Amino acid sequence: MNSFGRLFRVSVFGESHGAGIGLVLDGCPAGLALDENDFSLDLERRKPAGEGTTARREADRPVFLAGIFEGRTTGAPLVLTFANADTRPADYDFVRDTCRPGHADFAALTKFGGFNDPRGGGHSSGRLTLALVAAGVVAKKLIRPAVVEARLEEAGGEADAAGAAARAARDGDSIGGLIACRVAPIPAGLGEPFFDSLDALIAHLLFSIPAVKGIEFGAGFRAARMRGSEHNDPIIAADGTTSSNHAGGVNGGISNGNPVLFRVAVKPASSIGRPQETWSFASGGTTGLSVPGRHDACLALRVPVIVEAAAAVALADLMLREQKIPRVLG
Amino acid sequence: MNSFGRLFRVSVFGESHGAGIGLVLDGCPAGLALDENDFSLDLERRKPAGEGTTARREADRPVFLAGIFEGRTTGAPLVLTFANADTRPADYDFVRDTCRPGHADFAALTKFGGFNDPRGGGHSSGRLTLALVAAGVVAKKLIRPAVVEARLEEAGGEADAAGAAARAARDGDSIGGLIACRVAPIPAGLGEPFFDSLDALIAHLLFSIPAVKGIEFGAGFRAARMRGSEHNDPIIAADGTTSSNHAGGVNGGISNGNPVLFRVAVKPASSIGRPQETWSFASGGTTGLSVPGRHDACLALRVPVIVEAAAAVALADLMLREQKIPRVLG
Amino acid sequence: MNSFGRLFRVSVFGESHGAGIGLVLDGCPAGLALDENDFSLDLERRKPAGEGTTARREADRPVFLAGIFEGRTTGAPLVLTFANADTRPADYDFVRDTCRPGHADFAALTKFGGFNDPRGGGHSSGRLTLALVAAGVVAKKLIRPAVVEARLEEAGGEADAAGAAARAARDGDSIGGLIACRVAPIPAGLGEPFFDSLDALIAHLLFSIPAVKGIEFGAGFRAARMRGSEHNDPIIAADGTTSSNHAGGVNGGISNGNPVLFRVAVKPASSIGRPQETWSFASGGTTGLSVPGRHDACLALRVPVIVEAAAAVALADLMLREQKIPRVLG
Amino acid sequence: MNSFGRLFRVSVFGESHGAGIGLVLDGCPAGLALDENDFSLDLERRKPAGEGTTARREADRPVFLAGIFEGRTTGAPLVLTFANADTRPADYDFVRDTCRPGHADFAALTKFGGFNDPRGGGHSSGRLTLALVAAGVVAKKLIRPAVVEARLEEAGGEADAAGAAARAARDGDSIGGLIACRVAPIPAGLGEPFFDSLDALIAHLLFSIPAVKGIEFGAGFRAARMRGSEHNDPIIAADGTTSSNHAGGVNGGISNGNPVLFRVAVKPASSIGRPQETWSFASGGTTGLSVPGRHDACLALRVPVIVEAAAAVALADLMLREQKIPRVLG
Repeated sequence: MNSFGRLFRVSVFGESHGAGIGLVLDGCPAGLALDENDFSLDLERRKPAGEGTTARREADRPVFLAGIFEGRTTGAPLVLTFANADTRPADYDFVRDTCRPGHADFAALTKFGGFNDPRGGGHSSGRLTLALVAAGVVAKKLIRPAVVEARLEEAGGEADAAGAAARAARDGDSIGGLIACRVAPIPAGLGEPFFDSLDALIAHLLFSIPAVKGIEFGAGFRAARMRGSEHNDPIIAADGTTSSNHAGGVNGGISNGNPVLFRVAVKPASSIGRPQETWSFASGGTTGLSVPGRHDACLALRVPVIVEAAAAVALADLMLREQKIPRVLG
Repeated sequence: MNSFGRLFRVSVFGESHGAGIGLVLDGCPAGLALDENDFSLDLERRKPAGEGTTARREADRPVFLAGIFEGRTTGAPLVLTFANADTRPADYDFVRDTCRPGHADFAALTKFGGFNDPRGGGHSSGRLTLALVAAGVVAKKLIRPAVVEARLEEAGGEADAAGAAARAARDGDSIGGLIACRVAPIPAGLGEPFFDSLDALIAHLLFSIPAVKGIEFGAGFRAARMRGSEHNDPIIAADGTTSSNHAGGVNGGISNGNPVLFRVAVKPASSIGRPQETWSFASGGTTGLSVPGRHDACLALRVPVIVEAAAAVALADLMLREQKIPRVLG
Repeated sequence: MNSFGRLFRVSVFGESHGAGIGLVLDGCPAGLALDENDFSLDLERRKPAGEGTTARREADRPVFLAGIFEGRTTGAPLVLTFANADTRPADYDFVRDTCRPGHADFAALTKFGGFNDPRGGGHSSGRLTLALVAAGVVAKKLIRPAVVEARLEEAGGEADAAGAAARAARDGDSIGGLIACRVAPIPAGLGEPFFDSLDALIAHLLFSIPAVKGIEFGAGFRAARMRGSEHNDPIIAADGTTSSNHAGGVNGGISNGNPVLFRVAVKPASSIGRPQETWSFASGGTTGLSVPGRHDACLALRVPVIVEAAAAVALADLMLREQKIPRVLG
Repeated sequence: MNSFGRLFRVSVFGESHGAGIGLVLDGCPAGLALDENDFSLDLERRKPAGEGTTARREADRPVFLAGIFEGRTTGAPLVLTFANADTRPADYDFVRDTCRPGHADFAALTKFGGFNDPRGGGHSSGRLTLALVAAGVVAKKLIRPAVVEARLEEAGGEADAAGAAARAARDGDSIGGLIACRVAPIPAGLGEPFFDSLDALIAHLLFSIPAVKGIEFGAGFRAARMRGSEHNDPIIAADGTTSSNHAGGVNGGISNGNPVLFRVAVKPASSIGRPQETWSFASGGTTGLSVPGRHDACLALRVPVIVEAAAAVALADLMLREQKIPRVLG
C-alpha cells in the first residue's frame, strides 16, 4: 500500500507523465502555519539543475487542495498536488516491448498484468519522491528543534560529485553516490523496542526511495569488523551523552539522545544513453536498447533532500506517538 | 507497536528474565500442518553452542497455546510461548544505576520512565528474536517453494568466525559479523511501488533485530561507486531472468523474479567482560563497569537463522497480498 | 484518521466550501474498466433534487487525477476529485461565535483548537459523503455478482417520504428516516471471528456517515425480545441456506451465504430555518439562531446510495482478504 | 484480523475448549499499577451465576505472562492468559456433521475449510469476550475520571430479566436483551471527523461481541421519527453542555463533552435445548437437533460488563491519540 505512518500518515499518488502527482498527510496537528514559500527551498534542492541532471523542467509548485484554512493546517487531511507539465509520453512507446534494465518496468508489468502506466515508469517513477519531499517540509516544521541534514559525501567514488557526473554524462552513462544524514538535537525514547524501532522506520521509508540500495546506522558495516570494546559508546553524562557515537544515536531501536547518524547508498540512474541488452517481447530475443528521454547522470545529487524528508517523516510520527508534538499548535 | 504485517501479522511479547516470551501469528492460513518438530532445526540454529556463545541454556520448546487443532493451523490466531528457565535476574541489579554501554538500558529507561523491566534488557532483549525465529518457521512453510538461506560470511573481519570468536572470548571482548542472505525461487511482482516495497519491508523487519546496523541489497554500497552501464542487469529471457544480479532481485521495490540477495551487518555484542566507562546515577559521575552475566562473544554466529526468519515473514505477508498463498491449505 | 480498509483502502479529503473534495483508493486491483459514466447514476442519486433537499447545486463530475490509464485502473492509487463551485462561505461567518446545535461545530472547534475550517462544517460536512459514494461505485464493480441495494423505508415516521419532507420544509424544519439495505448473492466466509467481523466493518463505515445514529442487522433490536427458538434460522441446505434470516446473513461475524440485511437510522438534518437556542461566545450567554444557508429538510432521501457505498467498500475489502477478487482483472 | 486499536491495541486469542484464551495489550502506558485484584469485579460480573446462565464453571484467574514488573505495566506488550479447566470437548462431536443454527459453525466451516476448532465454537466462542473484559479493566483505569456504566434494561421484553430468564430456561429456550451504556465525564474532541469517528469505533468493537445485533447512539432509531427542532440539543454553556442529549454525546463523530449514551441489542443465545432443524452433511438432508452442552438462557445478563469493556477500549485509544493520557503514568 502507498501510505506510511501511524499518527502522521503520508500517502503519495500520481504518475510521471500523467496529470500530476500529490500527497495526502493525515494526522498533521492543527494550527501549523504553512504556505507555498515553506516548500521552495527543499523543492528547489530536489530539482534537476545543471550538468549531470535531467533536462526535464517542472515548476513543482504545490497546490493546496485541502486541509489549509487562513494559512494554517486545520487538522483535516492536508492534500497537495503538483502538476506535470513538461511531459513527453511518446518517449516511452518502446517500454511495452522492451523493459528497461534496472527499472521496475518488468517487475511492474508482471505485478499489474500490463495495466500499469508505462510512461516514464508511471507510478514507479522517481517523480513520486517530490511528494515525499513535500511531506518532509511539513514534518521538518513539526519536529523542531530537531534538524535533519543530509549531504552527498561522494559520487562515482569521488568527492567531486559535479566533476564525476559531468564525465559520466559525456559518456552517456550514470553514477551512484553516498549520502550521510544527521539528526540533532533529538529526544531520547523515540522508537519501539521491536518492530517499530527508530532505525526500522527510517530504513522502511528510505528503501521506498527507488534508487536506495543500502543503509547503515552509525558505524554500520564497519561495526561488523569492530570489537565490542571499541564499538560500545561510553556514557559520560546523566542525559545519556556518549563520548563516541558508533551506534548512530540508537540502541535497541530507541533513540538515546545523541545525534542520529546514518548513511545511504544510491545506485546509478538506470536510464542511460549507452546501449544495453534487454529482452524484446516482440522479437522473442534479446535486443540492444539506448534509453531515449532525458536522464540524470547522477541522481544522487538530488537525493539528499529526499533522504532528509524520509527521516523527518519517520521522526514526526514517532514524536507524535511519544507526545513530543502537541495535537494543536500555534 | 510490537507487531508487523498486513495479512500475516506477527506480534512478539515477553522479557528476558520474566516468565517467558512468545508470539501471536494472526492471518496464518488454515490447514497448515505444524508440530513441535517443525521448529527444532531453526530453534537449534539460534541456540548458543560452544565457544563464542553465552552459557545460558534454555530448552526453547514451543508451547502451542492457541490456533492449532489436530496438528494443523485453524485460521485463528496462532500463539506460541517459550518458558524462561535458566534466568539469573540478580545478575542485573546494577542496571538501574549504571546503564550498560551499547545496550538499550538508557534509552528504555528514558522512554518508559523507569518502569521497564531492567533484568537482562527486559523486553529489549535479544531473547525476543526467539519469537521471530518461530514466526519464521511458519513463514518458511508458507512461502515454499521459495527457500531462504542466510550464512555468516565473516566475523571480526575473518572468514574463520569460530576462531575469531574464541580469541575475542578469551579477551573478554566481542566481535561483529557480516551475513549474506538469498531467497529463491521467488515470483516477480512482490512489493509495492512506494512505501511497502519489498526491500523496505525486509529492512523494516531486519532493523527490528537489535544488533543489526546495516543492510544492503544486491551490489548495495558498492553500487554507489558503479556506473549505470555496469550496475544495470541485462534482461535475457521472457521471464525476466537477468545475466547479472546487482539489483539483488528487486527493481523499484518490486521483485523481478531473480534471487533476492541482501547482506546484513551485525555489531559486536554489547555485553563484554572487559571494563567500560558509563554513568553512575548513584555517584553522579562516570564509573568503570564490567558487565556480569553470560555473554555471546560473537552473537553473529546465531543471527543467520534470525535473518532468514525476518525475510520469510516479510515474504509471507507479500505473497498473501498477491494471492500467491491460498487462504486455506492442506 | 481519515482512511479505512486493509487491502481496499479509502481515504477522503476536502472541505464543504474549500476548493473541492476527493478520495484516494489504494489497493484497487489493476485492469478494472472505469470511466466517468460509471459514476453518473450513483452520484445522481446522492444529489439534492426537488422539495425536501438543499438548493445547493454542484455538477459533481469526477476528475481522474491518478491511477487510471487508457480507461482502466493501473493498480496504483486511484485519485478522484470533485470541485466545489456553488459555495457561499459568507453564509457561515456566524459559526465561529455561535455553534450550530446538532452539528459538529463545537466538538470540532474544541478538537482542533479553532483552526478547523468552519465554513459549512468544513471537513465535517456531509459533502464528504460524495467521496464515499465514488468509492462505492468502484467497490460495487469489484464485488459483482454481489449487488447492494438500499432504500428509504420511511421518513419522519411515514412511508410517503416526499410528502413528509415537503411538510417539514414548509415548517422550516427537518425529518429523519429509516433505510433498509440488502446484499446478495454473497459468499459465505467473509469477516473475521472477532474484531474485524463483517458487521463490525459495515457498522464502522456506516457510523462514519455523519447523520447515522443506529444500525441493526437482521432482526436487530427486535431480536432483544425474541426467544432463541424463534430467532435461530434453520439451516435447510448444504450451502447454508436458512429458511428464515433473522441473523441478517451473518453469524459470529462471518457471512453465512444468505443475504446480508441491515437497517440504518438517519437523524433529521441539523440545519433548520426555525430558531434554536445555542451559546454565543461573544455575548457569553444563550442566543436564538436561525441557521442560514441552504438545507435538506430530509437528507435521508439522499442517504440510501451512501449506505450502499459503505457496505460495498467493506465487502470489497473482505472479498480481497478472502481472495474472492483477483489482484488483476480484465 | 483479531486485533483492534491504533495506539492502545488489543489482540485476543484462544479457543473455548482448548488450553485457554488470552490477550495482548500493546501500547499501554508504562507505570500503571495493576494486579489480579483489579480484574476481580469485572470478571465476576461476566461469570455465569444462577438460573438463566450456563453451568460451566471457570476460575477465570488472569495469569500475567509479560509486560508487568513489580506491580506496574512496563510499556512492553502486556499479556494475560486464562486457563480453560471445565471443558467438555466431547459435547461437540456432532458439530462437524450438524452445524448449530444461530452459531458461526457453518460460516466458520466454510471460511476455514473445515480446519477450525469446532469444539464449543472454538475461536468463535463467547468465551473470547473474557479477554475483552480483561482489556476493559486496563482501559477503564486509563480513561479515569471517565466512568463507563452499562446495565441490562430488559430481557425477553421484560424489566424482570431474572424472572424472564428462569422461564426461558425451564422451556429449554433462551431470551435476548437490551443494554444501555453511559460514559461520563468525557472530554470534548475525541473521535475523527470521518472514518474513525467515536461512534464508528465503539460500534466496531461492540459488533465484535458475537451476540450483538444492533447499536444506537442517543435517540438512535427514535431519531428517524423526530424533527430537527426536536432532535437538536440546545447548547447552553461555554463548555458545550446541552439541555437535552438526543445526540448521545457525539456530533459528526466527535465527542461534544456531554455524556456518551448508547444502547445495544443482544440476541437470544443460539444454543438451546429445544429441538431445531438443521442440515446433516452425513445424511444429506435436514435433521432435528437438540444442542447438548451447558447453555445460557439469557446471556444478556452477562453482557453489560463486556459492553463497558468495548467502550472503554475505544475511548482509551482515542484519548491516547488526543494525548489525554500520558505515555508514562505513576
